[in-house]
Amino acid sequence: MASSVTPPRGMRDFLPREKAAREHALGVIRKSFAAHGFDEIETPVMEDAALLHSGLGGDNEKLAFAVMKRGLGPADAAAAAESGDLLGLADLGLRFDLTVPLARFYATHRAELPAVFRAIQIAPVWRAERPQKGRYRQFVQCDIDIIGEAGPLAEIELITATAAALDALGLTGCRVRINDRRILTTLLAHWGVPAERHERALITIDKLDKIGVDGVVAELAGLGLDTDGIAETLHAIGDAGWDLADADAAAPAWLDTAAYADLLALRAALPGVRLDFDPTLVRGMGYYTGTIFEIAHPTRGYSLGGGGRYDGMIGRFLGTDVPACGFSIGFERIVDLLGPDEASAANAVVLVHEKDADPARLVALKAALVAGGLRVRLERRTKNLKALLDRAGEAGYSRFAFVTAESVDASSLDFKALA
Amino acid sequence: MASSVTPPRGMRDFLPREKAAREHALGVIRKSFAAHGFDEIETPVMEDAALLHSGLGGDNEKLAFAVMKRGLGPADAAAAAESGDLLGLADLGLRFDLTVPLARFYATHRAELPAVFRAIQIAPVWRAERPQKGRYRQFVQCDIDIIGEAGPLAEIELITATAAALDALGLTGCRVRINDRRILTTLLAHWGVPAERHERALITIDKLDKIGVDGVVAELAGLGLDTDGIAETLHAIGDAGWDLADADAAAPAWLDTAAYADLLALRAALPGVRLDFDPTLVRGMGYYTGTIFEIAHPTRGYSLGGGGRYDGMIGRFLGTDVPACGFSIGFERIVDLLGPDEASAANAVVLVHEKDADPARLVALKAALVAGGLRVRLERRTKNLKALLDRAGEAGYSRFAFVTAESVDASSLDFKALA
Repeated sequence: MASSVTPPRGMRDFLPREKAAREHALGVIRKSFAAHGFDEIETPVMEDAALLHSGLGGDNEKLAFAVMKRGLGPADAAAAAESGDLLGLADLGLRFDLTVPLARFYATHRAELPAVFRAIQIAPVWRAERPQKGRYRQFVQCDIDIIGEAGPLAEIELITATAAALDALGLTGCRVRINDRRILTTLLAHWGVPAERHERALITIDKLDKIGVDGVVAELAGLGLDTDGIAETLHAIGDAGWDLADADAAAPAWLDTAAYADLLALRAALPGVRLDFDPTLVRGMGYYTGTIFEIAHPTRGYSLGGGGRYDGMIGRFLGTDVPACGFSIGFERIVDLLGPDEASAANAVVLVHEKDADPARLVALKAALVAGGLRVRLERRTKNLKALLDRAGEAGYSRFAFVTAESVDASSLDFKALA
Repeated sequence: MASSVTPPRGMRDFLPREKAAREHALGVIRKSFAAHGFDEIETPVMEDAALLHSGLGGDNEKLAFAVMKRGLGPADAAAAAESGDLLGLADLGLRFDLTVPLARFYATHRAELPAVFRAIQIAPVWRAERPQKGRYRQFVQCDIDIIGEAGPLAEIELITATAAALDALGLTGCRVRINDRRILTTLLAHWGVPAERHERALITIDKLDKIGVDGVVAELAGLGLDTDGIAETLHAIGDAGWDLADADAAAPAWLDTAAYADLLALRAALPGVRLDFDPTLVRGMGYYTGTIFEIAHPTRGYSLGGGGRYDGMIGRFLGTDVPACGFSIGFERIVDLLGPDEASAANAVVLVHEKDADPARLVALKAALVAGGLRVRLERRTKNLKALLDRAGEAGYSRFAFVTAESVDASSLDFKALA
C-alpha cells in the first residue's frame, strides 16, 4: 500500500530546477570568496554535545538537534528518568551555526593554519525551531571569517569579498549597514544608562524597527531608566542612520570617539561600497566586541546577511585571545532573489526518440553531443508530445531534436527551440 | 584553560588544501553527470525514523544515528526504560545511504518528475560503524539513478556517465565488472542449490575474494549443500571473470541464458568501456534484481563504486512497481587517488606586505588583481619569510610579490614563483 511520505517537518527537498539554481549560486559565492584569498574548510555536521552546549552559541544552543548515544539500554533510560537529564542520553548534536565549529576547528588545527587565516564555510546548519514562512530547520549558511587580524584590514577584506559575491550574483544596489559595539556603549553612557543595565538595554534597542521609538522609550522607562533625551537622539538618527560618505550628515558631539573615527577610515578604504552608519544597529549575538554590519537589500525590508568582530570567542578553546571578524550571507534569502540560470539552459538539449529506437545508437548520438559541450537528455516519445516538451523547457532545456531513421550522426539532427 | 578539542570519533575536518581537492573533484563529477542528462536533487540529511527503519536499507539500518525528539521529559525516559524501546525516544535519524531518501523523494514528487527520471545525488551519509582506516562515520556518496526505464538504456547511460566522470577526473584504465542477479540464480541452480538456500549461498560466494575457492566450497558444504563441481566451475571462472569483448573466452553451456545475452548486448552498446564479466560477482544489497556492476581500479585491489538494477524498491512507498537502476561512486576512495589541482594554483598569488602598510592601498591592489582573474591572498611579512612562502606554496599558491612604496598599481608588482 502507498504510504504518505514527506520530508521531516521544516526541512525541504530540492527539485532539479531549484537544486541547479542553488548550486549555481553557491558556485558563484565560493568563487568570489576564493578569489579574495579566503580558503574553504569543512567540519563534520555533528559536534560533541558538550562543545555545542559550552555557552558560545547563545540562545541557539537550545535549538540543537541531539543525537542519541549508540547502544543505550533500559538502564540508561531509567537513569535519565531518575536524574531528569534527558540530554545525558545524547553525546553528539547537529551544529546550529558555523561559528562554534570554526572555533573548535581553529583550536584543533591552529598549527597548520597561516597566521592570518581567512576561512570560507558553506554548509547547512540545523535548528529545531518552530517552522514558519522563510524559516527552516535545515538551511545553508555562507560564512567568511578572518582569524588573527586585529586591524581594520579584516573588516575591509570581509566587506569587499561579500560585496563582490553579491555583485557576481547580480544582486546590485545592496548597502552595508554598519555600527560598532563600542559606539553602542558610548550611546548608552551618553543616555546615562548604568553599565550593568547595558546588555538589557541593548535587547530593547534591537527591537527598534519592530516597536518604534515610542516603544523603545517606554520599555527603557519600564526598566527604571531615565529616558530624558533618548527619543530625541533616536529621532535624530532616523530609521536607517546615514550614509558615511555624506559630508553634510553632521555627527552628534557624543559620537566623537575612536570607534567612529575607525568607521570613517573603513569608509575611505571601501570606495565601491555604500556604508550606512546606524548607531542603533545592535545585532543579536552577545559575542560581538567591535564593528557589526548587515547587508540591506535595496527594496526588501530584510537583511541578507551580517557579521562583526568577535575577538573573545575563537580563542576560548585555546585559552588565548585571538582576534576574529566574520561575515555571514543568508543563503536561503539570497537564492530566492535570483532568476533562472540562462547560460546553462542555452547548452541543454533534448533528443526525442521512438520507443523501439536502438539504445546503442541513441547513446552514440548523445556521446557525440556531450563531447561537443552540450548537456543532453534522452526522452522517449509519448502520446502527449507537447506536455513532454513543455516539461523539458521548465526543467531548463532550450532545444530539442527528433532522432529518426535519418539521424545517422549528430550533425544530421535538426534542433528546434523549446517554447 | 585550553580544552582538548577534536572532531567526533570517525568524522573528519578538511583543511583548505583537502577541501579544495574535494570541491574540485565534486565539480568535475557533477558536470559530467549533468552533461549526460542527469538532474541533481537534494533531500534533508534527516528522515523520519520510521522511514529509515522500514527494511529498505538492509543491515545499514542498524547503523543509523538516531536524533532525539525535542522536549522529552523524565516520564518519556521512564516509559522507554519500561518498554525497553530506546529508539522510541527518537523521531528522526541521519540517512545511512542515498537510496532510501531517493525512494522517499520519488514518492513525494513523482507528479513533478519526467517519466524517466535521471537523478544525481552528491551528499554525505552517516553510519555509526567502528571507525577504521578508510572507513568513516560521515562520508560522501555520488549516486546516479535512472527511475522509470525498464530497458538496457538505463544501464548503458549509467555506465557511460560514470566512465565519463572517471575519465574527466583523470582516472583512466578502470574496468567495469558486471554480472546479473539472474545469472547468479542460474549458477546456483546449475550447482543444484535449492531455491530456499540461494540467499544464504550468495553470502558465502560474496566472500570469494577473502576466503578463496576452497573456503567457499567448505562453507557451502557446511550448509549441507552438495558441492560436486562447484570448485571446478569457480576455478574455470578465475579471479576476475573475463573481458566480454574477448571472443576467445568461451562461455560455459550453463550460461546460455537471456541474462547473458543482455550482457552481450550491453557490451555492443558500450564500445568505449571495458566490461569484465564475473558470474560470481554478488554485491551485498539484497534489493538488486538484475544487472549488478562495480568499478575496478586498474592497480588497487578495491572497488571505486558500483550499482545495479533494483526494480522492486523505488515503488515501495508508492505501492506500484517502478523500474530503477543506479550507480554510486565511492567518493572518499576516488579523492584519495587524485593529484593536486594545478590549474587552480596557476592563478593564485600572494601579496606580501609590511606590518604598517595602508589597508586601503592593499585592498585596492588586491581588487585590481582579482578583477584580472587572479586569486589573491594578503600576507603580512613575518621574520621567517621562507616559512611564510613555503606555507603559501603548500596551500596551493604559485606566485608572490612584495608590496613596497613603489607598488603604485597592480602592474608595478614584481611576481616571482613560489618554490
